[in-house]
Amino acid sequence: MPTYRLDLSYDGSGFHGYARQPTVRTVQGELEAVLARVLEPVDTVVAGRTDAGVHACHQVVSFSTGKLVDPDRLARSLTKLLGPEIVVYAAARVPQDFSARFSATRRTYRYRVLNSPFPDPLRRATSWHVRGPLDLEAMNRAVGYLVGEHDFASFCRRREGASTVRTVLSAGWSARSDSILEMEIAGTAFCHQMVRSIVALSVDVGRGRIEPGTTPLILDAKDRNRARGAAPPHGLVLWQVHF
Amino acid sequence: MPTYRLDLSYDGSGFHGYARQPTVRTVQGELEAVLARVLEPVDTVVAGRTDAGVHACHQVVSFSTGKLVDPDRLARSLTKLLGPEIVVYAAARVPQDFSARFSATRRTYRYRVLNSPFPDPLRRATSWHVRGPLDLEAMNRAVGYLVGEHDFASFCRRREGASTVRTVLSAGWSARSDSILEMEIAGTAFCHQMVRSIVALSVDVGRGRIEPGTTPLILDAKDRNRARGAAPPHGLVLWQVHF
Repeated sequence: MPTYRLDLSYDGSGFHGYARQPTVRTVQGELEAVLARVLEPVDTVVAGRTDAGVHACHQVVSFSTGKLVDPDRLARSLTKLLGPEIVVYAAARVPQDFSARFSATRRTYRYRVLNSPFPDPLRRATSWHVRGPLDLEAMNRAVGYLVGEHDFASFCRRREGASTVRTVLSAGWSARSDSILEMEIAGTAFCHQMVRSIVALSVDVGRGRIEPGTTPLILDAKDRNRARGAAPPHGLVLWQVHF
Repeated sequence: MPTYRLDLSYDGSGFHGYARQPTVRTVQGELEAVLARVLEPVDTVVAGRTDAGVHACHQVVSFSTGKLVDPDRLARSLTKLLGPEIVVYAAARVPQDFSARFSATRRTYRYRVLNSPFPDPLRRATSWHVRGPLDLEAMNRAVGYLVGEHDFASFCRRREGASTVRTVLSAGWSARSDSILEMEIAGTAFCHQMVRSIVALSVDVGRGRIEPGTTPLILDAKDRNRARGAAPPHGLVLWQVHF
């Protein structure tokens, strides 16, 4: 059966995450319901399963169908039925062995921290508000230790039988404005809560609660209890997926 | 009675504008309800009456009360009860003749246009999505004609008996990123729908539908029907008020 690829973005605020769940509203649930309506029931595969409250500027989904598909028309129909929370901005027929999950070679996430004395009503759905000064240079030293192939067991919610070895290709914090700090992190893949755990560590380092040099010790411990918890989901955006 | 000043920001998405109305949720309505709870019923005066869907990064409100007020504590209580949609980030006692409305000497607004082929779910509450190329230079030429003291009758929803003469101190469009165009406009005061009407004109100029040089003719006509309508409210933010 022919395989298709969808490129989409969404505001995760109103969803209980990407992955379909029986009784709650999810991105996959909404998407598959609409695909069933305009094509036929299909099983979709996704590049990055985002948690509740996490957003995507660029998410990729693939599926196979025997139905005749006009990709441009499909993208327009999906956006019409799923918008404005979900926008399908491209659809294309792809080689039959394409999988949004297994063919993806790199995922990039961004995380925004609003570092200001007061919260900002207009940024509350897309940033984590952190009061008090943050040492950007120390935060960058901390995340620098994570680049490369490591066992990220300390930074992941473990899934039974799944490896926690991952490769981080790049990670760094930068000041986007006077009050916005942003981490961009790219990896071949990430395990569950990994990016948000790295953000929580970074912010604790930035606040001076722990030394940047503690990072390799936490990594080596391979123990979730050694980490600094997970930053809130709403600051996180799946930024780009490469194939 | 002592007079107090509040500095606040809000996400206008969930409000039917700033000004109190009998049956719908407004910023003033919520604020006065909470002031009545923590102090006593007061009449508030505001620097900029924003329309439904319009946001504020910096709005100023003043009121008088005979009750004993600890300004810092008041700001914290108000934010606790009104957040996260409304944040009162400062409160202060001010001279008795201070009026948020009449003492304000300058209001600055910003308007964001998302100029991209596809809408962005994360920017839908804070920008106007405009497809197709926009000529930034032409837009700047158009708004340049509006700087100075003019009768803005063509750009205002007229209120019975009210003057439509206003002074625009500065106005200009700039590219904030590849896809975000932003207009900043400062004036002593603005009449109803004036900023959004100027944005609608700018975008029509940017699209090439009218020439920048048409602007002074529209201005001179002093006729609302000569304008290009009003841009949607959600791209607009009351950015700053000076006293």
